[in-house]
Amino acid sequence: MNFASDNWAGAAPAVMSALTRHNSGFASAYATDPLTESVSDTFSEIFEREVAVYQVATGSAANSLSLAAYAKPGGVIFCHQTAHIQVDECNCPEFMTGGNKLVGVPGAFGKMTPDALENAMAAYPDGVVHHGQVAAVSLTQATEWGTVYTLDEIAAIQSVARSRGVPLHMDGARFANALVSLGCSPADMTWKAGVDVLSFGATKNGCWCAEAVVFFDVEAAKGFEYFRKRGGHLFSKNRFVAAQFEGYFENGNWMATAAHANAMALRLAEGIRDIGGRTACPVEANEVFPILKRRQFEALEAAGAKLYEWPADDLPGDGNPSEDEVCLRMVTSFATVEADVDAFLSVLAGTV
Amino acid sequence: MNFASDNWAGAAPAVMSALTRHNSGFASAYATDPLTESVSDTFSEIFEREVAVYQVATGSAANSLSLAAYAKPGGVIFCHQTAHIQVDECNCPEFMTGGNKLVGVPGAFGKMTPDALENAMAAYPDGVVHHGQVAAVSLTQATEWGTVYTLDEIAAIQSVARSRGVPLHMDGARFANALVSLGCSPADMTWKAGVDVLSFGATKNGCWCAEAVVFFDVEAAKGFEYFRKRGGHLFSKNRFVAAQFEGYFENGNWMATAAHANAMALRLAEGIRDIGGRTACPVEANEVFPILKRRQFEALEAAGAKLYEWPADDLPGDGNPSEDEVCLRMVTSFATVEADVDAFLSVLAGTV
Amino acid sequence: MNFASDNWAGAAPAVMSALTRHNSGFASAYATDPLTESVSDTFSEIFEREVAVYQVATGSAANSLSLAAYAKPGGVIFCHQTAHIQVDECNCPEFMTGGNKLVGVPGAFGKMTPDALENAMAAYPDGVVHHGQVAAVSLTQATEWGTVYTLDEIAAIQSVARSRGVPLHMDGARFANALVSLGCSPADMTWKAGVDVLSFGATKNGCWCAEAVVFFDVEAAKGFEYFRKRGGHLFSKNRFVAAQFEGYFENGNWMATAAHANAMALRLAEGIRDIGGRTACPVEANEVFPILKRRQFEALEAAGAKLYEWPADDLPGDGNPSEDEVCLRMVTSFATVEADVDAFLSVLAGTV
Amino acid sequence: MNFASDNWAGAAPAVMSALTRHNSGFASAYATDPLTESVSDTFSEIFEREVAVYQVATGSAANSLSLAAYAKPGGVIFCHQTAHIQVDECNCPEFMTGGNKLVGVPGAFGKMTPDALENAMAAYPDGVVHHGQVAAVSLTQATEWGTVYTLDEIAAIQSVARSRGVPLHMDGARFANALVSLGCSPADMTWKAGVDVLSFGATKNGCWCAEAVVFFDVEAAKGFEYFRKRGGHLFSKNRFVAAQFEGYFENGNWMATAAHANAMALRLAEGIRDIGGRTACPVEANEVFPILKRRQFEALEAAGAKLYEWPADDLPGDGNPSEDEVCLRMVTSFATVEADVDAFLSVLAGTV
Repeated sequence: MNFASDNWAGAAPAVMSALTRHNSGFASAYATDPLTESVSDTFSEIFEREVAVYQVATGSAANSLSLAAYAKPGGVIFCHQTAHIQVDECNCPEFMTGGNKLVGVPGAFGKMTPDALENAMAAYPDGVVHHGQVAAVSLTQATEWGTVYTLDEIAAIQSVARSRGVPLHMDGARFANALVSLGCSPADMTWKAGVDVLSFGATKNGCWCAEAVVFFDVEAAKGFEYFRKRGGHLFSKNRFVAAQFEGYFENGNWMATAAHANAMALRLAEGIRDIGGRTACPVEANEVFPILKRRQFEALEAAGAKLYEWPADDLPGDGNPSEDEVCLRMVTSFATVEADVDAFLSVLAGTV
Repeated sequence: MNFASDNWAGAAPAVMSALTRHNSGFASAYATDPLTESVSDTFSEIFEREVAVYQVATGSAANSLSLAAYAKPGGVIFCHQTAHIQVDECNCPEFMTGGNKLVGVPGAFGKMTPDALENAMAAYPDGVVHHGQVAAVSLTQATEWGTVYTLDEIAAIQSVARSRGVPLHMDGARFANALVSLGCSPADMTWKAGVDVLSFGATKNGCWCAEAVVFFDVEAAKGFEYFRKRGGHLFSKNRFVAAQFEGYFENGNWMATAAHANAMALRLAEGIRDIGGRTACPVEANEVFPILKRRQFEALEAAGAKLYEWPADDLPGDGNPSEDEVCLRMVTSFATVEADVDAFLSVLAGTV
Repeated sequence: MNFASDNWAGAAPAVMSALTRHNSGFASAYATDPLTESVSDTFSEIFEREVAVYQVATGSAANSLSLAAYAKPGGVIFCHQTAHIQVDECNCPEFMTGGNKLVGVPGAFGKMTPDALENAMAAYPDGVVHHGQVAAVSLTQATEWGTVYTLDEIAAIQSVARSRGVPLHMDGARFANALVSLGCSPADMTWKAGVDVLSFGATKNGCWCAEAVVFFDVEAAKGFEYFRKRGGHLFSKNRFVAAQFEGYFENGNWMATAAHANAMALRLAEGIRDIGGRTACPVEANEVFPILKRRQFEALEAAGAKLYEWPADDLPGDGNPSEDEVCLRMVTSFATVEADVDAFLSVLAGTV
Repeated sequence: MNFASDNWAGAAPAVMSALTRHNSGFASAYATDPLTESVSDTFSEIFEREVAVYQVATGSAANSLSLAAYAKPGGVIFCHQTAHIQVDECNCPEFMTGGNKLVGVPGAFGKMTPDALENAMAAYPDGVVHHGQVAAVSLTQATEWGTVYTLDEIAAIQSVARSRGVPLHMDGARFANALVSLGCSPADMTWKAGVDVLSFGATKNGCWCAEAVVFFDVEAAKGFEYFRKRGGHLFSKNRFVAAQFEGYFENGNWMATAAHANAMALRLAEGIRDIGGRTACPVEANEVFPILKRRQFEALEAAGAKLYEWPADDLPGDGNPSEDEVCLRMVTSFATVEADVDAFLSVLAGTV
C-alpha cells in the first residue's frame, strides 16, 4: 500500500531490460553515441517535427537549465505558487539563471489562470528597471495537484506569455500522465499550444533517471549544450540515459505505464467516494488528494499504508479540511498494483 | 582495440547485477533509502573513519560541488594546469563557486610540485583584496597523464595548502587506479595524507554513473546537501546510484577492475617498449601515452584501433614529439581485454 | 512643489562642503586613506560599540552585499512583501547571494508582523532540502510606507529570526528619519534590539552617494571586503565617500536634515487632514501617502506638483482608495522647503 | 613626490566645479535626469556616431558589466595576463559573467600579440563542450605597463577576435592617456579599429568616480540597464556622475589633464635616463617603470617619494632587474606637479 510518491518505484521492466541490453561493448562518451542520437530522432517522431533534445538525469536539472536558456539579468519567471520549481528545487532555478526571481501565481488546484498570470506580470511593466524584466512563464503539466491543463487553457496561458514577449516552458515531470488524461498527441499538448521548451519527464513514469529538455524553439537551443555541461549535467556514459528512453518509448510502454498509473488513481478516487469520502480536487492524472478524518489517516498508517499529509489551506469554496480532517496526497505509478489499491480501500471502508 | 577512454565502457557485471537486484519494490526517494545509507556506512569502513558522503552522478558535479563548499568571494583555487576542473568541465567549477578563479600550476606529467604551487599562491598574498583570496588546492589522483602522486608528494602539496590555511581537494576520478598503483589503503591516500574532501570516482572504473563527494573534514560538510540539491544533483531514485556502489564495492570488485585496467596499461606500455617505442611519461595507472610516428598512428587507426592524439608540447627534457611523431592517449578499463591489447601491439609491431 | 522622492534632491551643504574640503592632495586608494578610517571610528562612536563598517555608494549594493555575507545554498531570505530588496532592486539580492530566494511577508503599512514572519518561515522547516533553508530576515526602517517599527517590534521580529537561528538585517535607507521619529539612540534601534547587520543609508538624507554596511556581528564581517570588491563596489577614491559621511555626521547634520524632512511630512499630513483629506497610513517618517480624488491629483499636477501614484490595494479595513480616488506617495527631504509644502496645501485646498 | 597611483589624486578643478554647479534643485533619479542625457549626447559627439552609454562609478563595474553583456555559459574571455580584469578585480568579471573563465595571454609590456591570442584561443575550438566556448577578447588601452596599442595593433587583435566570432572589449581605464599618446580621434581608437564595447575611464584622469560603458555595438546594449541595476551600479543621484563627465569634457579638460600626466611621465623617464638609469619598457602614457638599484629606491623612499615595487620577471631580452635592482612603478596624473618630478629626479641624481 505504497502511495508515497511515483519516485518511490524502481524502473519499469522495459527500461531495465534496455539498460541491460545496451551495457556491453564500447560507446563514445558524452552523448555522442549512436543510441543517444537515435533517441533524439525518436523525440522528433513523437512530436511530429524537428526538436532539439538534451538528455539529463533529474527533473530539477531539466527545469532549471530550460529556464537558464531564457534567463535575463533581473529576469522574472512566472509559475504557479505551488510549482515544483518554486517550492521544491532548493533555488536551483534561481541559481542556474543567475538570480532570476520566481513569482508564484495563484489559481485553484495548481493551475494558473490567465487573469492571475496577467495580473502578476503587470507588476513588472516593460522598461522599469527597478522591478526587473519578465523572462518566462512556466506551467506544470500535470500539475502538483494532479490536475491537467486543457489544450485551451495552455493556449490561453501562452497567449498571456506571448503578449509580454516571453516564452512558455512546460514542466512535464508527469507529461505522460497528462497526455493520457487528455487523449491528445504530444504535439497538441506542446508546440501546437504554444509551448517553447519542455522538461520531458520519464523518471516518475518508469525510468530511473531520464529526463529531457526538448526545445520546439530550436533557435533558442543554440549553445544549450554549454548550459548542460556547465551545470555538471552531461553524462559521460550517456548511453544509459538514452537506453532508458529507448525502453520507455518502445511499444508504447510509456503510454501504458501512464495509463495504468492514472487508472489506479481513478480507482482510488472512486473507492474513496464510494464510501462517502471526498477528494480535494479533481483526479485527472496519477495523484489523489483525499480529505479524511485524522483518525482514518491514522488507521491507514497503522495498517501500513504509505501516504503523506499535504498542505491545503486555500481550497476553493468550503473545500478546506475541517478541524478534524486532514488532506492527504496519494501518488500512483506503473508499480502500483490493483490489489494494493483495493487493500487500501478496504482498510478505509473499515474506518467509516 | 578500443582505447579511447575508460568512459567508453559500459558497466561492470557486478554493478549491473546490483542495479537489477535493487530494482523491485519501493524505496524512499531523494537519498533517504536504506541502501543509500548502507553505502554511506561502507564508505566509512573503507576509509577507516567517519566520513560524510554525498552521492552524485557525474565527476564534474562531484568536483564542482566539493569546491563550492569551500568557495569564497574572490576565491582562487589552485590545480595543475592540465587538471580536469581547469580544462574539461566547461567552467562548472567557476559557476558552482560563484566565480572563483582556477589557477593552473605547472609540473611534469600532470603533477604539481610543491614549489610551483607555493609560487603560484604567492601571487595572492593574504589581505590584498584586489587579487582575491586563496580558497583551495585541488590535485588529481591519478593525474590526467596517468601518473600517481606518492603519499609523500600528496603530503607535501597538503603542507603548502595548509601553510595558507586552505583545504586540499582530491579529484579521484581514477581513485581506484591510483590506489592499486600505490598499494596503500584508501585512508593512507586521503585523510592520512591531509586530504579534506575527495571526489570519489567510480564511473570510469565500472559503474555507469556513480561518484561521491567524501568529506573527511566532516564539519565542512554541514549543509552540503543544499549545494547538491541547488545544483540539481540530488536523484529522486538514488537507490540506483547506491546500488552501483554496492556492486562496485562488494567482494573487492573495484580493486579488481582497477587492477585489471592498470595491468592492461602496463602490458601496452611494455609491448610498445619491446618494439623500441617510447611513452611520454611513466605508466602508473590505466593510461598510456605512446609517442609514435604519425604513419604508425595512421596504420593503427586503419586497423581499427581507437585512440586519440594528445597535446604534448612541454614534456621535460627532449620528450616532445618530433615533427613526424605524435603523442597519443590510450586508456584501459575493466572492459579492456588482453586479446585487444595484443592485437594492437601486433599491428604496431608490423609498422616498425 | 517637488515631492517625487528624497533621491531627487542634491547633496546637503555640509556634505558638499566636505567633498570640496577633502579634494586636494593625495590620499591612498581603495579605502585605505585616513579619512575612511576616521569615518569608521565615527560609526563606532555613533553606535556606542565596535562595529565593522564598509562604505559603498548605492543602497542596492549595501543591501545585497549584506545579505550575501549570510547567504546559503538554497537560502531563503524573508522581508516585507513591499520591501525594496524584493520589489525595487532588479534581483540584485538574488544575484549577489548566488540565487537566494526572497519571500515576501505580509503586514499592514510595510511592517512584517512576527506572526506573519513565523508563518512564512514555517514553510521552510529545517532539514527539508527541497524547500531550501532559512538564511536571514530583513526589515526596513523606516518602511516603504513611511512607517517606523518600534523598538519592541524590532525585538519581536528579531526573536522570530533567532528562533530559527538566522540573522536580522535592517535596510536603513531612511535610517535617520526613523531614528528621529523614535527619538532613541542608534544603538537602541539596532544591535540593542538584535540587529546583526545594517544598511546605513545616507544618500536619501543629504549625501549624494554614501551608504555603509555596518556589522554588529563583527565575526560575520570577516572577509566582507572581498564581497564588496567582487561586486565592483570598492571605490578607488573612497575618500570622497568618506568625506560625505564626515559632512553628514558633523555637528549632528544628519539628525537635523532628517528632523526637517520628517517635520515637512507631518506638515503635509496635517494640512491634508485639515481640509478633510486622509492618508493611507500613519505618517511616522518622511513619507506621506494621501488618498485623494483623482481630479484633485490632476489639479495638483497641473499646478506643477511632483508626486506619484502608489499601488494601494490591500490597505486594512476600508482603507483602499475608492473608484474615483487615488493613493499618492509624497516624499520630503532636507531640501523640501516649507513654502513648497504650503503652496501644495493651498492648491489642494482649492480643490475641495 | 607622490607617484603611487593616478587614483591617489582628488578631482580636477573643472570636475569639482561641475559637481558644485549641479548640486542645487531637484533632478529625476536613476539616470533619467536631463544632465545624464546631455552627457550621453556628448559621448556620441565625441565618438562621431551614435553610441549607447551607461554611466557607472567604478572601473571594475564598467569592465565586468561590459563582459557580462557578452557572457556565455562556459564562456572564455581572453586578455593580457597582466590585465586588470585578470589580476586586480577580485573575480568581479568571473562573478558578473556567471563564471566565465579569463585566460591570460602573454606579450611584452602588457600587450597581447595577435599570434599569442590566436594560440590561446586555439585551445578552445568551437563545438568542444568540455573546454567551454570563446566569448570575448579584452585589451587594455593604455596597458598596465603604460604602453599603448597602435591602431594597427588594435585592428590586428580585433581581426583575431572576429575570426572566432567574438567581440572586442577595450578596458579604457586610461583611455585619455592613450588617446593623447596616439594623437588620433576617439573614433579611430575604438569602433573604427573594431572595438565593440569600451570601458571609458575618467576617474584616474580627474574625476572622482566616473566611468562609462560605451557600446558601439548598439544592438548588444539592449537590456544592458538591467545588468547595471542587477549589479547595484545604478545611482539614484546619477546627476553627480553626469556632472563629473560634464566638467571632464568641457573645454577639452580631459585632453589637457591627460596630456599633462603624460608629459610628467616623459619628464620622469627622460630624467631617469639622463642620469644613466633605464626603464623597464617604453613610456607611452602616464606610467614609468624605472629599474633602479635597491639602495636608490630606499633613498627615494627615505626622501618621501611614494612609488611601488612592481613584479618584473619576464621582461624581454636581458630586461629583468638584476639581483641588486628593483623594478618600480610610478604613475602621474593631472595632479602631478613639475616641481615634484624635479625634486624626485634631484634626489635620484644624488644617489648615482
